[in-house]
Amino acid sequence: MKINHGVTFRDDMTVELVKSSASDSDIIWAARVSTQGDRSLEAVNADPARSEGLIRFLMRERHSSPLEHSTFTFYVETPLFVMREIQRHRIASYNEESGRYKELKPVFYVPNRERKLVQVGKTGAYQFEDGTDEQYVHVINALQGSAVEAFDRYKFLLEQGVAKEVARMVLPLNIYSSVYITVNARSLMNFISLRTNRDDARYPSKPQREIEMVAEKMEEIFAEKMPLVYKYFNEFGRVSP
Amino acid sequence: MKINHGVTFRDDMTVELVKSSASDSDIIWAARVSTQGDRSLEAVNADPARSEGLIRFLMRERHSSPLEHSTFTFYVETPLFVMREIQRHRIASYNEESGRYKELKPVFYVPNRERKLVQVGKTGAYQFEDGTDEQYVHVINALQGSAVEAFDRYKFLLEQGVAKEVARMVLPLNIYSSVYITVNARSLMNFISLRTNRDDARYPSKPQREIEMVAEKMEEIFAEKMPLVYKYFNEFGRVSP
Amino acid sequence: MKINHGVTFRDDMTVELVKSSASDSDIIWAARVSTQGDRSLEAVNADPARSEGLIRFLMRERHSSPLEHSTFTFYVETPLFVMREIQRHRIASYNEESGRYKELKPVFYVPNRERKLVQVGKTGAYQFEDGTDEQYVHVINALQGSAVEAFDRYKFLLEQGVAKEVARMVLPLNIYSSVYITVNARSLMNFISLRTNRDDARYPSKPQREIEMVAEKMEEIFAEKMPLVYKYFNEFGRVSP
Amino acid sequence: MKINHGVTFRDDMTVELVKSSASDSDIIWAARVSTQGDRSLEAVNADPARSEGLIRFLMRERHSSPLEHSTFTFYVETPLFVMREIQRHRIASYNEESGRYKELKPVFYVPNRERKLVQVGKTGAYQFEDGTDEQYVHVINALQGSAVEAFDRYKFLLEQGVAKEVARMVLPLNIYSSVYITVNARSLMNFISLRTNRDDARYPSKPQREIEMVAEKMEEIFAEKMPLVYKYFNEFGRVSP
Repeated sequence: MKINHGVTFRDDMTVELVKSSASDSDIIWAARVSTQGDRSLEAVNADPARSEGLIRFLMRERHSSPLEHSTFTFYVETPLFVMREIQRHRIASYNEESGRYKELKPVFYVPNRERKLVQVGKTGAYQFEDGTDEQYVHVINALQGSAVEAFDRYKFLLEQGVAKEVARMVLPLNIYSSVYITVNARSLMNFISLRTNRDDARYPSKPQREIEMVAEKMEEIFAEKMPLVYKYFNEFGRVSP
Repeated sequence: MKINHGVTFRDDMTVELVKSSASDSDIIWAARVSTQGDRSLEAVNADPARSEGLIRFLMRERHSSPLEHSTFTFYVETPLFVMREIQRHRIASYNEESGRYKELKPVFYVPNRERKLVQVGKTGAYQFEDGTDEQYVHVINALQGSAVEAFDRYKFLLEQGVAKEVARMVLPLNIYSSVYITVNARSLMNFISLRTNRDDARYPSKPQREIEMVAEKMEEIFAEKMPLVYKYFNEFGRVSP
Repeated sequence: MKINHGVTFRDDMTVELVKSSASDSDIIWAARVSTQGDRSLEAVNADPARSEGLIRFLMRERHSSPLEHSTFTFYVETPLFVMREIQRHRIASYNEESGRYKELKPVFYVPNRERKLVQVGKTGAYQFEDGTDEQYVHVINALQGSAVEAFDRYKFLLEQGVAKEVARMVLPLNIYSSVYITVNARSLMNFISLRTNRDDARYPSKPQREIEMVAEKMEEIFAEKMPLVYKYFNEFGRVSP
Repeated sequence: MKINHGVTFRDDMTVELVKSSASDSDIIWAARVSTQGDRSLEAVNADPARSEGLIRFLMRERHSSPLEHSTFTFYVETPLFVMREIQRHRIASYNEESGRYKELKPVFYVPNRERKLVQVGKTGAYQFEDGTDEQYVHVINALQGSAVEAFDRYKFLLEQGVAKEVARMVLPLNIYSSVYITVNARSLMNFISLRTNRDDARYPSKPQREIEMVAEKMEEIFAEKMPLVYKYFNEFGRVSP
C-alpha cells in the first residue's frame, strides 16, 4: 500500500544470509583438539554424522566454546524498535544504515491481524491475547497516520536545508532500517534462545513478537547450516550455551 | 514548557555519576605488577602523583590494559537517537527503561538555538553550520508538532487497551529514555575519543552534537576522578586506548 | 620449606580483594530502571532486603544484565597451569606479573596430601580418587626436583647474561605468578559456576582442583559483598547467568 | 633430533589456515550500508578493486567496524609461553589441547642461532642483541636438559597412576601445545599491530620474538586474503583499528 512520498507499510522482517562459514564438523575438530591435538585436523573434512555422539555430549554438557568457530553474516531489515533490541546483544558485529548520512526511505512497520495486541497479567508474568477488530483498526490508523505525518515533516525539513541527522528526530520507531550482522554460532544460539517464546525451553523467554520474527528466520538458517547442533540444541532445552 | 498530556521539551542531557571505583592509583598498581609482582600492592594506597612519570609513559605508549580496573556507573537521560549510538559501544553494561514494561513519559528533545542545523560538504567530510532563524523555527515546529501528535496517539492506544509494546511504535526518536551505564576507564576513554569533536585529537571524530553533549559530561567526571590519566590522555592526542 | 636459591613450595592460593563496588542494591536499581525510569534512583541508597523478592525473581528467571554493574578487583597468586585456565575467561580484565620484565621468584606449587591424585573413568566422565602414600611421595619428589633443577638453570642462564624472556622457558608450570583481576558480578558468577564442583549445581562442572581453590575464595568474598544475590544463585542451581 | 621418550626439539611455529570467510569486498558492503541501505548488497559480489578509494578512506580514518565481518580460523602450534600471550587477546575464540585430558607429546621449543639472546637497556626501552656462541650453547643445554628430565618425570608419574592434570605440573614452558583460533579481521589486525616489531608502525611495539613468529605467519595469510585492506593498513602506520 502506497501513500504520499511513496510511504510503504510492511508487516514482515527481512533476514538474508549474506555468507556463512559454519558446519556441524566445526564443533568436532574444535572439541577434539583438547584430547587429540593435531589429529583433530582430520575432522575438518570428515562427515560430522559419524561424530553425532560427540555433538550430543557437548550440547548436553553445555561445552560451548567449540561453537564459536562457526560464523554467519545476515542482512536484516527491521523497524527501529526491533533494531534497538537486537543491538543489545554485544557479542556480534553490526553495520547499520545511518540516519546521519543517508536520507531514509518511507518504509514503516504495521502489525498484521494475527499479532496479539493485548497484554494481561503483571510485570514479569505478562501474557498476550488477541486484539479486537476495533483495536486493530486503532493500531493501524495510529501507525499509518503517525508515519505519514512524520515523513511529511522529515521531507519538509530536508527541503528547508536542515541536516538529515536533525530532521530524522521526528521519525517514529516503526521506520525500517537495514543492518549487516555477523555472529558466531554460540552467540546466535543465545539470541535464538532469548528471543523466541517456546514451551519446550528450559528457561522460557517472553520476547516482543517482532524480534521473535527475526529470530525465527535466523533459526531456520541456523538449522539448515548446522543440523546436528540444532537437533541437540532443541533436545536439551534450547539453553543459551 | 508544557502542552497537553504534560508534554515537556528539553534541550539538554542528564549524566549523573551513580558510583565509581576509579583513581589514578589504579593504573599504577595494575602496571607495576608486571615488574614488581606482589610489591605492586604498595601502590594501592599510595599518592599517584609520585608516579606521574609512569602514568605519562603508559599513556604515551598506549599500554591500555591497566586502565580496565577503574569503573564508572552513570545514570543517563537522553533521546532515543542518541541512546542508539551510545549502545553501539559494546564494552559496557547497560540497563535501560523499557517501552514494553513502562508507560513512557512525554519528554522530548528539541535542539537549542546554538545547535548547528546545516550540513555542508560530502559524506566523510561533513561540516556543520548555523541554521537561519527560519530553519530553527521549522525544526522546533516539526519536533514539537510531531511529539504532541505522537503522544496523543500513544495515549489513545493505551486507553483502548493496546499493549505498551505496540503503542510505543508511534513515538518519535526524540523521546527521552533513561539508562544505567557501567564502563571501565579504557572503554570510557574510547567513547570520549570517538564522541567528541576536537581539533587537538590525533584522529579527529565527527560525532552528532547530541551524543557529544553526553560525552562532554562524562569527560568532566572522568577528568575529576582520574586527573593524571586525563592530563596525558589529552597530551597524547586523545587516542582511544 | 626452603631449598637452594630460596626455593619455596606452597600448597595454597592467594585471593585478596583489592577493591569492590558491589552490593545487593546494585541489581535492584539496575533492574528497576526498566519499569520505573528515574524513580529507580531511589534504590541506590535503599536497604536491598526490602526488595529481596525482586532479587529472587531476577535470579530465578536468569535476568542477568543487572548483575553487570557490580565490580570486584582481586589480587591473585596462583601457579601458571591455573593462571592459564583463569585467563580463558574473557569477560574480565587482567594485569599479570611478566616473565619478560621481571626476574621470577622461586615459589612453586605442590599439592597437599588431601589432593586426589588418581583419575578414573573416561574422557568426559572423569572421577578423582585419593592417591596412595607412595603416589603422593612420587608427586612431591617430581615437583620439587623439577622445580629446584629448573630454577638452577634459570638462574644460571641469567648469570650468563641471557634475557629473562629466554631463560624463563625452562621453568615448569607449577611456578607461581601474580595477577590483578577485575570482573563484574555476572562474569564472576559464571566463573564460580564453571570452576567449582558441586552436586547442587544444575549443570555440574569438573574443574581442576587447583582452580576450584581460587574459585572458592572468590565465592566467599562474593557471598559477603552480595549476600542476597548469592543466596538465590545457590537456590536456583548455581547456573552461570 | 630425537632423544629418549622420543623428545623432539623445534625452533619454528605452525600457523595453518583452517578456513576463512574474508575478502576485501566485505568491508565495502559493510561500510556502504550506512549510506546506501539495501543497495550495499550489490557490493557483495563486486570487484573490490573498483572501490579501493573507499578502503583507503576507511583505513585512514580508522572506521574499523566494517572489518569485523571477515573471519579467519587458524590452527596453531606454539610453546606455552607464547600460547599464554596469544590468549591474552580476548576478542577471539580458542579451543586448545588439554593437559588434563590428553597425554602431552614431548615436543619442545629451542631458539635457533639467529634468535637475539641478550636484553640491554631498561624496562620500557629494551633492545635485544645477538648472543655469543657460548650463551647460545648454555641456552640450548638448559632447555634440552630441562625438557628431557621434565618429560622423564612426567612419564614416570603417569606410569605410577598419577592423573595427567597433576603430572603435567612438572613440564616446562617451552613444551608445545596446539589450538584453533578464530578471529575477525579487526581483531587480527590488532594482534598483528601489537605483536610485530616494525619501524614503520605509528605506535611501535616490542613483542617477544616467538609470538612475532606467529604474528608474521598470520600476517602473510591476512595479506593474501585481504590485499587492499592490508595495503592501507601498512600505508597508515599499522595502527590497530
